[in-house]
Amino acid sequence: MSFSETLKPSLRPTPPDTAAVLARLHALIGPDLEETNRIIVEQLNARVELIPTLGTHLISSGGKRLRPILTLVTARMFGYSGRSHALLAAVIEFIHTATLLHDDVVDKSDRRRGQATANAIWGSKAPVLVGDFLFSRSFQMLVEYGDLKVLRILADACAVISEGEVMQLVVSNDLATTEAQYLEVVSCKTATLFAAAARIGAVVNGRPEEEELSLARYGELLGRAFQVVDDALDYASSNETLGKSIGDDFQEGKITLPVIHAYQHGSEEERQFWSRSLEEKARIEGGLQRAIELIRARGSLDYTMGLARQLAEEAKAQLQHLPASEEREALALLADFSVSRSF
Amino acid sequence: MSFSETLKPSLRPTPPDTAAVLARLHALIGPDLEETNRIIVEQLNARVELIPTLGTHLISSGGKRLRPILTLVTARMFGYSGRSHALLAAVIEFIHTATLLHDDVVDKSDRRRGQATANAIWGSKAPVLVGDFLFSRSFQMLVEYGDLKVLRILADACAVISEGEVMQLVVSNDLATTEAQYLEVVSCKTATLFAAAARIGAVVNGRPEEEELSLARYGELLGRAFQVVDDALDYASSNETLGKSIGDDFQEGKITLPVIHAYQHGSEEERQFWSRSLEEKARIEGGLQRAIELIRARGSLDYTMGLARQLAEEAKAQLQHLPASEEREALALLADFSVSRSF
Repeated sequence: MSFSETLKPSLRPTPPDTAAVLARLHALIGPDLEETNRIIVEQLNARVELIPTLGTHLISSGGKRLRPILTLVTARMFGYSGRSHALLAAVIEFIHTATLLHDDVVDKSDRRRGQATANAIWGSKAPVLVGDFLFSRSFQMLVEYGDLKVLRILADACAVISEGEVMQLVVSNDLATTEAQYLEVVSCKTATLFAAAARIGAVVNGRPEEEELSLARYGELLGRAFQVVDDALDYASSNETLGKSIGDDFQEGKITLPVIHAYQHGSEEERQFWSRSLEEKARIEGGLQRAIELIRARGSLDYTMGLARQLAEEAKAQLQHLPASEEREALALLADFSVSRSF
Repeated sequence: MSFSETLKPSLRPTPPDTAAVLARLHALIGPDLEETNRIIVEQLNARVELIPTLGTHLISSGGKRLRPILTLVTARMFGYSGRSHALLAAVIEFIHTATLLHDDVVDKSDRRRGQATANAIWGSKAPVLVGDFLFSRSFQMLVEYGDLKVLRILADACAVISEGEVMQLVVSNDLATTEAQYLEVVSCKTATLFAAAARIGAVVNGRPEEEELSLARYGELLGRAFQVVDDALDYASSNETLGKSIGDDFQEGKITLPVIHAYQHGSEEERQFWSRSLEEKARIEGGLQRAIELIRARGSLDYTMGLARQLAEEAKAQLQHLPASEEREALALLADFSVSRSF
């Protein structure tokens, strides 16, 4: 199946319908997610009104809440009956939101989730500082929870995420970037938080380390699949569906897998186009359209989506080490969804 | 004594000579500070070379290390014989450095400590992300240390610092800012970390809460005095002495105490000048020179330095609740130094 077909539901053999996936997740953890949302609003409280205003703008903008959902589902998977998982899910959404605020400043992005970014509305200063507040508030919440193991998992995750962001900055505009380097950036900047989010469900239940690590690996692979698809969508989706500006990665000179593949398999003339556009940052008339055409012509989207599907399958394989349950099925569905989604 | 005299050592009645103060501190905690510096270098290690490069650029640029020194001196004050104080001092310097990196991006500052800022050299992206790394690494180090009380003190401090930074952003360019609002910003963005740094010395020694809080109050008052002097120096010092660009606050429209005082005591014409310069951000020929003249003419530097001296005296008074020691004397000297310094 080619990637273009994944965007046409009628042609997909077993399409995990987005609405159906979300409905199933909500049936399992609906009240937990509401509690997480309540905690998010409560913890955004600060002595300066701009902090909750700006924080709410992004957090309430209809993100998929995938990371907190991972924590809630994995906690429920083992019959967790406490309330701390909702708190930890909120912490994870805070950390994610902080990185998005800083990302959008660093990338000078105008749109995210179908609306103006915080930096487009408030300038770049406030999002840098409010991002810092969200990081700090996350650690305050974790200290309040008081489990050093969870603290370690998330402090480590935050350090790796920022390393991944710096790594991405270093390889940006460099077409010599290899697929391995690309995947390391993806692993650090995105998959690490997915892994931590999934792992914490086992930790709060005091499950054996083997299960904990299976969930961490599931999260890691799911996160990689998710990011790889994201990078494909930036050359494939339409603005309306994606909610952010298509072609952002191209404009910013990010070297993602579709580009790496198209560059490596391109003719001399095509490689010159890529080099002028991404390394020399020349503004070429119709450049994005040409980039999309070359990526399609070289089969680079199919290649990228093939890798994503493989990662999602590997993620599902990790679930076999865990007891069968409705939650486990939902996690498998989430892996399929990460690949088939169009936003 | 007028403030201009504080800049001329020959006229000061009891000038705590900078070199003498630093020599005394080094005699007390020299090896500890070396250990802190060693830990800083070790912990800057990351999988991307740009992180230690950029971090070292700022951390090794000859900062005064006042915050880590506070932790080291207060820890030694109670006869601490472990090695964790050096680690915690490094954590505090990391947190401070992270806020400086983000501050300089937010303020678009070109110079700090007599050299180009990280954003002037590497652009604004890297310092935002390396700042995030330093925050994260701080929490990793704290988790490794494993004391939840210290974790709480520093997580709380980080949240308050970022609230203070946002608060400062909100009141910038607004001449209706009151002295009380100004002092709240100072307390949050600067004094909070001084307070935490001083307090931790008592915590690692397991001292009674009363002593812990006396040190916290000492640090808070010292930090306020320090920042108030900083804000005075921005209109009084020369570029060479200060190490950063004089008049930065004026260019950025920061409403600091010298300005609040000069505005409140200015003639109608003078208030119009302040309003045009700071609220309407008009670039007036010779504006900075005029600002400096008005601040001197209205006695606003004397007023500002008077407040700083008062804060330093209050800081010293807190030390009376603590057992007499060489370290206690050094802390008193540090309070004097915070006011008499010219950089």
